[in-house]
Amino acid sequence: MNIYDIAKMSGVSIATVSRVVNGSPKVSEKTKARVLAIIDEYGYTPNAFAQGLGLNTMHTIGIMVPSISDMYMANAVFYLEQSLHERGYECILSCSGYQASQKESHLQMLLSKKTDALILVGSTYAGSDDKSHNTDYIKRTSEEVPVFLINGLMKSDNIYCTATHDRQAIFEATKGLIESGRKRILFMTDSKSYSAKQKKKGYHDALSSMGLTPDINMEVFIPNDVEIVRNKMSEFDVLNFDAIVASDDAMAIGALKYMLHSGKKVPDDVSIIGYNNSSLCICTTPELTSIDNHVETVCKNTVDRLLEVLQGDKTVSHRQIFDCDLVKRGTTDF
Amino acid sequence: MNIYDIAKMSGVSIATVSRVVNGSPKVSEKTKARVLAIIDEYGYTPNAFAQGLGLNTMHTIGIMVPSISDMYMANAVFYLEQSLHERGYECILSCSGYQASQKESHLQMLLSKKTDALILVGSTYAGSDDKSHNTDYIKRTSEEVPVFLINGLMKSDNIYCTATHDRQAIFEATKGLIESGRKRILFMTDSKSYSAKQKKKGYHDALSSMGLTPDINMEVFIPNDVEIVRNKMSEFDVLNFDAIVASDDAMAIGALKYMLHSGKKVPDDVSIIGYNNSSLCICTTPELTSIDNHVETVCKNTVDRLLEVLQGDKTVSHRQIFDCDLVKRGTTDF
Repeated sequence: MNIYDIAKMSGVSIATVSRVVNGSPKVSEKTKARVLAIIDEYGYTPNAFAQGLGLNTMHTIGIMVPSISDMYMANAVFYLEQSLHERGYECILSCSGYQASQKESHLQMLLSKKTDALILVGSTYAGSDDKSHNTDYIKRTSEEVPVFLINGLMKSDNIYCTATHDRQAIFEATKGLIESGRKRILFMTDSKSYSAKQKKKGYHDALSSMGLTPDINMEVFIPNDVEIVRNKMSEFDVLNFDAIVASDDAMAIGALKYMLHSGKKVPDDVSIIGYNNSSLCICTTPELTSIDNHVETVCKNTVDRLLEVLQGDKTVSHRQIFDCDLVKRGTTDF
Repeated sequence: MNIYDIAKMSGVSIATVSRVVNGSPKVSEKTKARVLAIIDEYGYTPNAFAQGLGLNTMHTIGIMVPSISDMYMANAVFYLEQSLHERGYECILSCSGYQASQKESHLQMLLSKKTDALILVGSTYAGSDDKSHNTDYIKRTSEEVPVFLINGLMKSDNIYCTATHDRQAIFEATKGLIESGRKRILFMTDSKSYSAKQKKKGYHDALSSMGLTPDINMEVFIPNDVEIVRNKMSEFDVLNFDAIVASDDAMAIGALKYMLHSGKKVPDDVSIIGYNNSSLCICTTPELTSIDNHVETVCKNTVDRLLEVLQGDKTVSHRQIFDCDLVKRGTTDF
């Protein structure tokens, strides 16, 4: 039940519902009575709406992603936009790329559009340990409007973070592979972001906990692109690996394609696990086992907390972290 | 070379460049001289900029898509946002869904954000022949700001359309299949939009031109979802088809997965062609032959014409239609 439902059931526009709950004189008594009756019937008080619909706000949320052509980002924007629109908010989208200077200029642009709050999707915005000064512009921005980070963690009074237990998820996936008899596990990553580092730590944790020694050669830095990975995989043949944990599905699929092409059996010769549980996973044969990081849950939780913050709630948690799930398919056998 | 480059080379903000070319008195003579020197050096006249940077505009373009979780839409928004941002424009994104009433309310929202122009991505906005009154709200909107349609055609003074020769592309793909010996070709679609109808016409054209009689049973209406198609394909076994032309890649991949699962050889027993040439195509084994409708070209051309329209050019073409290309991969043998 949201402002659209109220408008629809009352047979009036959203703007009219807004006017009614804000006590505008521009609405006829008859219309006013009808809208208030619907609101009453469903147990809403006009004041609860009024706060969210106050004429002082632009009802606009800025969303920044590095790239909307990335499937995880596209899905995140889909869920964010849907949830926000249901609550009567419009979104301004900005795709910043991955360069620090561009990120800052895009964030300034979003702020200049009189946005009520900003949502930054992707751990790229949380910087990396060695360059934490790169995130100062986000902290400065949060002095003007609340900032919500998805998949990144930063500490500041007006910054709210939602993330997933990436380290734990990779730990469990890697441990599962080792318990099922795999000994030489290749780890693939395309990033040095906070989230990427957590994933690598999870991989190390699992090796250590199972008595295996991490080998730096088994940690491969490679772009998250099916074709690039497929074409580069032959370079890693000498590593004699029997399993792959990839930090994104596209990478895992590039590796899978190379394995199948070079006559290896998956999962018998090589087990493969991806990350994000994207729609790519079910395109391959065998289908890709992947870690589901619940983008829908993360985005909807972010929007819930964002609205609470905008309504003046001072008790909203600054940090919410969700568990991931391993979705087992044909590229693993445990 | 754009406003960002001018700003960067002058060592000032974009806002300052804008002030200089608009003759604002709030800029020091020294800064003004520096910016104008850079502009001069690269052969720009301040007036050419001034028009695009006039303080009367919000420099904001509204983009409406039915769903950003669709890969074609996500890629289109990626290219649109990138091109617009390079020219100093910000984007407001709205995801309208496919319901007529929702589309209209989303379009009103975008308009209320003082957008300079609107871009509607997807043939769903062009309505279908039997319900053309559904597009009246778009024509009304175009009386206020120029409207750009991607993948849909509508005739109106202030509506500009960019599309691809979908009918011709499906005609050629289907003809290729028939020439290579295929006789019973299944056609799959998920839509009754303008673009979907053009595709179906192309399929009919090819059958007729090759002396085959269209069979209504061979035209399947099914959601564009890998898993749904895979699970429903057994219903069509009785049709005894030897090729599939699908109006989207996900459908084609669902069909491919069913074929492989049921022991059919692809392309020997059944050839398959998808549409959009999305990143899904190279995930499958064999990889999917698909029609590339050049989303990048279409989007960049739209932005070019949009800027010309905003700069007052009265000679901008209302309709620009691009050719598609068949990208042959492992699911076909011609």
